[in-house]
Amino acid sequence: MIPVAVVGASGYAARELMGILARHPYADLVMATSRADESTRVDSLHPSLNRIVDLACEPFDADKLAEKARFAFLGLPHAASLAVVPKLRERGVRVIDLSADYRLKDAAVYADWYAHTHDDPAGLAEAVYGLPEIYRDQIPTANLIANPGCYTSTSILSLAPLVAEDLIDRRSVIIDAKSGVSGAGRSPKLNTHFPECNESFSAYGVGRHRHTPEIDQILTDVGRMTGDPVEVLFTPHLVPMDRGILATIYATPKRDVTERELMELFRNFYEDCPFVRVIDGLPATKDSAFTNFFDMTVRVVRGRILIVACLDNLLKGAAGVAVQNFNLMNGLDETLGLI
Amino acid sequence: MIPVAVVGASGYAARELMGILARHPYADLVMATSRADESTRVDSLHPSLNRIVDLACEPFDADKLAEKARFAFLGLPHAASLAVVPKLRERGVRVIDLSADYRLKDAAVYADWYAHTHDDPAGLAEAVYGLPEIYRDQIPTANLIANPGCYTSTSILSLAPLVAEDLIDRRSVIIDAKSGVSGAGRSPKLNTHFPECNESFSAYGVGRHRHTPEIDQILTDVGRMTGDPVEVLFTPHLVPMDRGILATIYATPKRDVTERELMELFRNFYEDCPFVRVIDGLPATKDSAFTNFFDMTVRVVRGRILIVACLDNLLKGAAGVAVQNFNLMNGLDETLGLI
Amino acid sequence: MIPVAVVGASGYAARELMGILARHPYADLVMATSRADESTRVDSLHPSLNRIVDLACEPFDADKLAEKARFAFLGLPHAASLAVVPKLRERGVRVIDLSADYRLKDAAVYADWYAHTHDDPAGLAEAVYGLPEIYRDQIPTANLIANPGCYTSTSILSLAPLVAEDLIDRRSVIIDAKSGVSGAGRSPKLNTHFPECNESFSAYGVGRHRHTPEIDQILTDVGRMTGDPVEVLFTPHLVPMDRGILATIYATPKRDVTERELMELFRNFYEDCPFVRVIDGLPATKDSAFTNFFDMTVRVVRGRILIVACLDNLLKGAAGVAVQNFNLMNGLDETLGLI
Amino acid sequence: MIPVAVVGASGYAARELMGILARHPYADLVMATSRADESTRVDSLHPSLNRIVDLACEPFDADKLAEKARFAFLGLPHAASLAVVPKLRERGVRVIDLSADYRLKDAAVYADWYAHTHDDPAGLAEAVYGLPEIYRDQIPTANLIANPGCYTSTSILSLAPLVAEDLIDRRSVIIDAKSGVSGAGRSPKLNTHFPECNESFSAYGVGRHRHTPEIDQILTDVGRMTGDPVEVLFTPHLVPMDRGILATIYATPKRDVTERELMELFRNFYEDCPFVRVIDGLPATKDSAFTNFFDMTVRVVRGRILIVACLDNLLKGAAGVAVQNFNLMNGLDETLGLI
Repeated sequence: MIPVAVVGASGYAARELMGILARHPYADLVMATSRADESTRVDSLHPSLNRIVDLACEPFDADKLAEKARFAFLGLPHAASLAVVPKLRERGVRVIDLSADYRLKDAAVYADWYAHTHDDPAGLAEAVYGLPEIYRDQIPTANLIANPGCYTSTSILSLAPLVAEDLIDRRSVIIDAKSGVSGAGRSPKLNTHFPECNESFSAYGVGRHRHTPEIDQILTDVGRMTGDPVEVLFTPHLVPMDRGILATIYATPKRDVTERELMELFRNFYEDCPFVRVIDGLPATKDSAFTNFFDMTVRVVRGRILIVACLDNLLKGAAGVAVQNFNLMNGLDETLGLI
Repeated sequence: MIPVAVVGASGYAARELMGILARHPYADLVMATSRADESTRVDSLHPSLNRIVDLACEPFDADKLAEKARFAFLGLPHAASLAVVPKLRERGVRVIDLSADYRLKDAAVYADWYAHTHDDPAGLAEAVYGLPEIYRDQIPTANLIANPGCYTSTSILSLAPLVAEDLIDRRSVIIDAKSGVSGAGRSPKLNTHFPECNESFSAYGVGRHRHTPEIDQILTDVGRMTGDPVEVLFTPHLVPMDRGILATIYATPKRDVTERELMELFRNFYEDCPFVRVIDGLPATKDSAFTNFFDMTVRVVRGRILIVACLDNLLKGAAGVAVQNFNLMNGLDETLGLI
Repeated sequence: MIPVAVVGASGYAARELMGILARHPYADLVMATSRADESTRVDSLHPSLNRIVDLACEPFDADKLAEKARFAFLGLPHAASLAVVPKLRERGVRVIDLSADYRLKDAAVYADWYAHTHDDPAGLAEAVYGLPEIYRDQIPTANLIANPGCYTSTSILSLAPLVAEDLIDRRSVIIDAKSGVSGAGRSPKLNTHFPECNESFSAYGVGRHRHTPEIDQILTDVGRMTGDPVEVLFTPHLVPMDRGILATIYATPKRDVTERELMELFRNFYEDCPFVRVIDGLPATKDSAFTNFFDMTVRVVRGRILIVACLDNLLKGAAGVAVQNFNLMNGLDETLGLI
Repeated sequence: MIPVAVVGASGYAARELMGILARHPYADLVMATSRADESTRVDSLHPSLNRIVDLACEPFDADKLAEKARFAFLGLPHAASLAVVPKLRERGVRVIDLSADYRLKDAAVYADWYAHTHDDPAGLAEAVYGLPEIYRDQIPTANLIANPGCYTSTSILSLAPLVAEDLIDRRSVIIDAKSGVSGAGRSPKLNTHFPECNESFSAYGVGRHRHTPEIDQILTDVGRMTGDPVEVLFTPHLVPMDRGILATIYATPKRDVTERELMELFRNFYEDCPFVRVIDGLPATKDSAFTNFFDMTVRVVRGRILIVACLDNLLKGAAGVAVQNFNLMNGLDETLGLI
């Protein structure tokens, strides 16, 4: 058994993570930390984990954690991970960070979008972007995983094959994304107060959502052999439902394409990916909710490529992919604990 | 036109109220006050009122209000009304208070359930409980209306005819009530955070909800000629929907009764009440939502009386009945602005 | 009072319509017809209309209708209106048809998208497209109104000023639209069964939704003075909520534009339109739900124009605009019964 | 591996069942039958099972089933199981029937409530009621399990300890139950059409829901040593959510009781039951949704006992308890595949 700790246990992704880890055949969840709720039991924070996780939260202590655990999953808010990661790294703990702190390779871009100076350039240089379908070869030996954002994974997995094959105009991409409310986190705010967002649909953060540079960066990396940077127009929306993200993505092809060849391209590209389901019909978030699957299909409409893709923002978009990374980092079957 | 003010304009009941008043043929909404959002426009607090209410909020000032308005509707939190009502009353403003501050006739009971000393016994003595179907004769001349609670109106209107006719055992009443989330107000809290209460159903405040003594008091008053105090067992629940309260009410009859005679009793009792619909089928909250109607039916099952009743908690349960009271206080048709 | 009839009373738009007409100061709802539910009361079909509409349904009979009513609102399914409109027209009844049967000016396009031959070319030639913000001058004298589709109104009102000013590339338009479930009508189907569509978000009819040619036709007409046909890429989605449509619309400008000038353009274009609210913030469907308002804003992001717009699909998208047309056809204030 | 078949694969309980069985360490799902959808793939009926269940449906054939499988789970409608069970039983297949056909021991009561003659008295006599917490000793050797109803399990587990200890007046019990919409099955009907039941709460089947005699029968059996039959007043309601049942149950105690002693009674009674969580706080359906747990608590209010209990209607209320029974019938750990 591999002893693991969850740092920042009070949020939704942490809840999902602890549920998966508690049932994982090789993980042993030995510690959960929480600033807000020190010494309260995990199943008091998350009643659904009653009889699943039998732990009380403790304050974060790097020494104590390193003594007990070999892996740490961080469920901290952005910027907070920066204060924790170096301490864990220097004590030899392998880290899977669910925050955005190590995702953007360029510290200046990070500072720009997160309004916070990045003071761990060494960590940043070493961090591997934890999207197994793209960086499968780098994850096994990584000691610091920057676990991807939920919108980001949805977008990248939808576009990577097209960019890798240089099939689309890289400035033409429009990502119209829709997320369930759990994506906004667990802190009550007016816009996520039930009578405000229930029975309502709205766009938010138009033109300035923080997942934009993350999508640009990874897709540009995917297409680095063949051309220009990718620059997407990304619009997030809030859907009155708990979980799930669906993205409708539009791109202009560089040459005439058919649906058949695109479907084949996607199926080949993801042939060895147990969690990618390229389907004939149109996906619905409900079918991938509570799973680690990414569902997608592709169409050609009036000369443009249209992709519809979805995943569970808390699982394939956060806690599930984190465990997928954990499995790969331990040379285990990628799907353990996740199917 | 009758100039009116809304004090405490940021909540849901106030929003509904201002929407109704803006369209009311005889009311002229001249002022809205708000502590939290002074000088912001009403339609910035409540975007749905854009082009409906053209006012900016101002801080509460009793002199200014009395200068401008003859009526004040108070949408303040409990206890806050106590500080405002006497000031308005002494300046001759007629008040319709949507808080609970003037509902419980016994100041000790108030102190007990609201953890706050009642320091306006004169107001308390003078206040009329604003449930028109029960206190129709006292409302027209009242200068201070204690507007009823939403659970309370649902419960009282369901039971009043049975108590008035002394048909039921007054200690046998069980009120199993279910409310949409807007009933919890507009301040974001964890239990009304969308991902917490959506797709969930739960009881709360079991045995200690503040509407209990209010129901007891009014039903005891209704049955004062014929017997003992009424003492109900009241259990509220939270339903993942915006608006609407439905109560399923059980009572043991004192003698054999039939559904037919009970239906007739209710229809007669509410014959002159334009907002009470005694229906044959089982009511659903959706059919009274966004209206000022109270819908109900009655059944006899295994020897017990079972009533199913519902209303819109923000309208018939708050802002709608407030305007109904306003109409009666002005000698107007009770339904003005409400149908 | 103007006597009016509703033909096809069982659906949601008809319910909304009858509710509005019952409260309208000059309309007198004298007849409701329904094939499925002949002789049942309107408030049995629609319990929310109890005490609002006091009518029983009757079978459709053109003579009887023409005897009693001067206006007919048709809430029939597509193709069914074709059988009814000529009979009413020849008897001098003015018709507002909520179906799609008279919207597409080219009978071949209609046959193509609706799989039904159009056999009333005279009616088609005479019909006026009932979007008052665009065809305000033609509606007052029209005898047959083709009431617009809900997605269509949302899209056209969002784009008309840009097309009229010839500001955008007419082949660049992407309309990513999201609708509440009432838009799918009242007939139960698996995809609108609660446990299927609740907590789910999905696209449907990709590339082949029937509102596409309607949007193309009207926008092409709006821009007829300045250029090529408009050809949009339209993608509808289903949102787990009752009512409301929100469209996020992307277009490539022909020249550099600023948000400020675009906002001004829209405000000027709709200056005299009481139901268009051009707002600074991002609209949410909830704020226009249960109203006849169309809410919108415009942004410029990474060189493209982005519009976010919404309306209530049953009101401004169906029954509300129908009454707006009725008002104009009678020389009445456009907003009667609607604010 | 134990080869198992699912008969009637198109419903929600069958979907959950196949998902569990596909991941179960000892079950091998070898066959799925469906009348409506013969030869369609299971993952076409249930897209969420894509990559989980790799089977096509076949028509039901008792011989073929008996050849392939040792266990059959029946997900058929009421009455349909009656035609299938004897055929499977005589071929030596052990059956877990999720319908109500073998739950009521008295064929006359069955005929009365289900309007269908029971023509398999032998099966009825042999059938064991599959509620492991109550009939743990009879299940391991049973060859025919009548899997309990969802409302029924919620109610029985809430009341069994009180009845067994003869603590309550057996005619005083009121069960006010609330269910998510998946409890109504997968066939689209008007009352489960999204725009009808969303944002609505209603009671249904007042005084005549078919789970009533089932609750009476089992609780009477539980209390057979100490007294009179149990006769409950049961009222079901529909909650606008997918899954979960919560029951608020009221009973009059025969003597003075305290919350502390009742909590202890429940905890002792269910000490060896891994799926019963007796909790201090008030349960919410969300915390047991997607699990096989039954959550409950007990209170004493104004002299009466009040229980609040919940479970997932599709799991602990149907497919989960079916697998729990399967585990016990095979001498396996009760929790396999379920935690």
